[in-house]
Amino acid sequence: MGSAAWDDLVHHLRELEVLDGARALLGWDEQTFMPRKAAEQRGEQLGLLSRLAHERITDPRITRWLDALDDQDPVQAACRRNLGRVYERERRVPAELVDRLARAKSAGFASWLEAKERSDYSSFAPALERVLDLSRERATAIAPERHPYDVVLEESDPGTSVSSLRPLFARLRDGLVPLLEAIAAKPALESLEGRFELGGQWELSREVARALGFDFDSGRLDHSEHPFTVGLGAGDVRITTHLRPTDLLGGLGGTIHECGHALYELGLPRELGGTTVAEAASAGLHESQSRLWENLIGRSLPFCRWLSRQLPRHFPTQPVSAEQLYRAQNRVERGLCRIQADEVSYNLHIIVRFELELSLFERRLGVAELARAWADKYQQYLGVAPATDAEGVLQDAHWSDGGFGYFPSYTLGNLYAASLGAAMAAALPELWSEVEQGQFSRVLEWLRSAVHRHGHLREAPDIVRAAVGERDPVSDLLAQLWARYGALYGVAPCADATRVP
Amino acid sequence: MGSAAWDDLVHHLRELEVLDGARALLGWDEQTFMPRKAAEQRGEQLGLLSRLAHERITDPRITRWLDALDDQDPVQAACRRNLGRVYERERRVPAELVDRLARAKSAGFASWLEAKERSDYSSFAPALERVLDLSRERATAIAPERHPYDVVLEESDPGTSVSSLRPLFARLRDGLVPLLEAIAAKPALESLEGRFELGGQWELSREVARALGFDFDSGRLDHSEHPFTVGLGAGDVRITTHLRPTDLLGGLGGTIHECGHALYELGLPRELGGTTVAEAASAGLHESQSRLWENLIGRSLPFCRWLSRQLPRHFPTQPVSAEQLYRAQNRVERGLCRIQADEVSYNLHIIVRFELELSLFERRLGVAELARAWADKYQQYLGVAPATDAEGVLQDAHWSDGGFGYFPSYTLGNLYAASLGAAMAAALPELWSEVEQGQFSRVLEWLRSAVHRHGHLREAPDIVRAAVGERDPVSDLLAQLWARYGALYGVAPCADATRVP
Repeated sequence: MGSAAWDDLVHHLRELEVLDGARALLGWDEQTFMPRKAAEQRGEQLGLLSRLAHERITDPRITRWLDALDDQDPVQAACRRNLGRVYERERRVPAELVDRLARAKSAGFASWLEAKERSDYSSFAPALERVLDLSRERATAIAPERHPYDVVLEESDPGTSVSSLRPLFARLRDGLVPLLEAIAAKPALESLEGRFELGGQWELSREVARALGFDFDSGRLDHSEHPFTVGLGAGDVRITTHLRPTDLLGGLGGTIHECGHALYELGLPRELGGTTVAEAASAGLHESQSRLWENLIGRSLPFCRWLSRQLPRHFPTQPVSAEQLYRAQNRVERGLCRIQADEVSYNLHIIVRFELELSLFERRLGVAELARAWADKYQQYLGVAPATDAEGVLQDAHWSDGGFGYFPSYTLGNLYAASLGAAMAAALPELWSEVEQGQFSRVLEWLRSAVHRHGHLREAPDIVRAAVGERDPVSDLLAQLWARYGALYGVAPCADATRVP
Repeated sequence: MGSAAWDDLVHHLRELEVLDGARALLGWDEQTFMPRKAAEQRGEQLGLLSRLAHERITDPRITRWLDALDDQDPVQAACRRNLGRVYERERRVPAELVDRLARAKSAGFASWLEAKERSDYSSFAPALERVLDLSRERATAIAPERHPYDVVLEESDPGTSVSSLRPLFARLRDGLVPLLEAIAAKPALESLEGRFELGGQWELSREVARALGFDFDSGRLDHSEHPFTVGLGAGDVRITTHLRPTDLLGGLGGTIHECGHALYELGLPRELGGTTVAEAASAGLHESQSRLWENLIGRSLPFCRWLSRQLPRHFPTQPVSAEQLYRAQNRVERGLCRIQADEVSYNLHIIVRFELELSLFERRLGVAELARAWADKYQQYLGVAPATDAEGVLQDAHWSDGGFGYFPSYTLGNLYAASLGAAMAAALPELWSEVEQGQFSRVLEWLRSAVHRHGHLREAPDIVRAAVGERDPVSDLLAQLWARYGALYGVAPCADATRVP
């Protein structure tokens, strides 16, 4: 590609990034500081910026630019792949379908809210059917020759497909079910009781984020109803958390999780802005970064030892031992609720959803049968069945809003994190003694080099493969879980292949 | 104008308002919560949104729309006047001049920062000369037939002119100089000593804002280095303040001042969005709202009585009497610094600047003579002369950044506020007893009806005239100042024309 044309393209895409940064601030403010009565106004502002972004991503000059890209240049080749995918997606969906789907999602979300309130799935089914039909129609419009679920998967996790995920998730499920069963047969671990004053929790959250490597000159930590991370551009990545007096570890876990997302955003190759490469490679890889910090590091005994030494400064009258923290951090409970799930059962919640939405997309399952199928799978995989629709099939908003194909990224994140963690532990012999001292810089350096700095030059599975070699992520994850939970619950000997404290 | 064309125009202008709201959020965040390293990124975001706004305000369709507006309809007539003015201004300045001026301002501001640091006006003079020349050139490009200072005045205070302001400000100056001299000959009043804990000050600021009528569901109060108000659209008007432990009254005064601005913004006729009428009529009228609350209400004895009853809840160990508050709120001191000036001398600071910038624009004064002329006028009007350039001519950033014609709006605000206050006091016989009870709703109602709800349907001087009748604002302001300060300092009998406690 001629350098003038390349400059034009980069300038165009850079403008889109700048616009997205502004839009991200509006979204962040909406969830943190915006006054209540500004909601309508904010909707208009977000709508306008979305329209301006859409105009830019469907600019007809992009066709010419794409044609001229030089595949010998790795950045231009990545740009062709990343931009081409989004451009075709936006271009191929007719405006009237965008409009019908937007209205169906909006009606779907409203219907879901009401149905959940009344715990009545049947009243939501027609709206869900409509959103599902239109989502499939959209997938077909984008790529009529492909599996429609592959098309939606690709929106969050390019580089994955039904044919790769189905066996991967089945093997994981078959390994997790017996582990969860074995744990459930043992006495429960104790949770951490007591009220922890919010002022101290805020200080602790900030201190832990800073220790992990979060730079408060390049970001913020605030409160919101649901924790989230948003990157507004170079030097501005913001995280939120939700702290509660009776849930010290839940709140801190949320902070660590979001901090993992933020460290990824902060480590992206910003010098490649305007090329599509200075972006996260996939939702699953993003999730791997939050999960690695939250689970592998944050639930480890060395981390609990370090944390137990920090607590007295913030809660001088509430002594908590490292062992107490470690046990409370790793309680496993068969439950119905995904967002409250522990590390062992979490992926089973996701696999239920993956299997169900795939069946819906493949028309092997009808919307009318969904609640029943949900309950059956919960019984089968998690050993519990919902007594009501509200605590079962209606618990998540995702489907009401057309969010098919997104759930897998949570489990992909855990799988990537397991292999990354195993490779990192092998590469850093002092890892756990450093964690115990509150030294996290080598972990961050390793992740920067293995994951962050690659941005979206390659697809996520390739980035992970290059970082860890030919590992089996299912074996890695199961080995880590058996090692930690087997020992804690006394259900099996530690797997010695991967030493994870 | 045909209703379809009118709808198109309103839609176009509404989009511009929505864009400006988004831009305002970026600006607010920059001064309140933005992390330090985001500055460059934020500059790009603001630059892009400014360019998008500029494209919309110079849209060539506006010529046709303007031609078709119907002057029989008061909203369309106002739209022609308001939009036509901005459109012609933006259209007539060549892009290369915009660019040269932008670079000159940027260099001017940098030069000013450095010169102030070194207190060396001569090193700043060449950059100022350049900004001044280009500002005059720009004014001539906009309206070659008009006085160039009228052109810049109109950008902040449409409806005013050199020929109206010159005699108004001269009369005010001639009335203020003897008052200030008389006060300066008397013993000083006591300031409020002591440290007031910031937590209590924040609570107090919020409580006072709420009492004045600020709706926290439609806005926020945060911290920033320099207090400001920004309207992001309907239901979202944000104010900031800067509290210091040793300056309870200064911080609270800042809150009340910004609150006055915010109440104006919140009272604008939002239902007329997209017509140019749902906006403030001028910077001077905006300032009248902040000054009326800050000075007329906030420095009154009845307000101090109410305030003295609120303080013990926040500062239980620091009793302060109403009389102490009243005297501390109304200390007058000859000084060199505009932003720390009291109510009596403040307008003399402005008049010095107005006279000097007018002379510069009329080429009666050269940039090289400015520092000397500044010192002379301070000596003459305020009885003090700066020992250094830093505390004299270099104290404000305005001119370095091309902000000519803006200073007058501060004094216009005080003049409008004086007449509005006099008319309001005449219309509300229970005014001061209600203020003493912390009841401010009737004040707000009166201002809503007299000022806020008119938006920019008429020009500011006409709005004020309609609200107060044929009053002389200079007499009103001088009467109020003599009444309050004469009594406090024992320099003259209370003027009984206007009863202001």
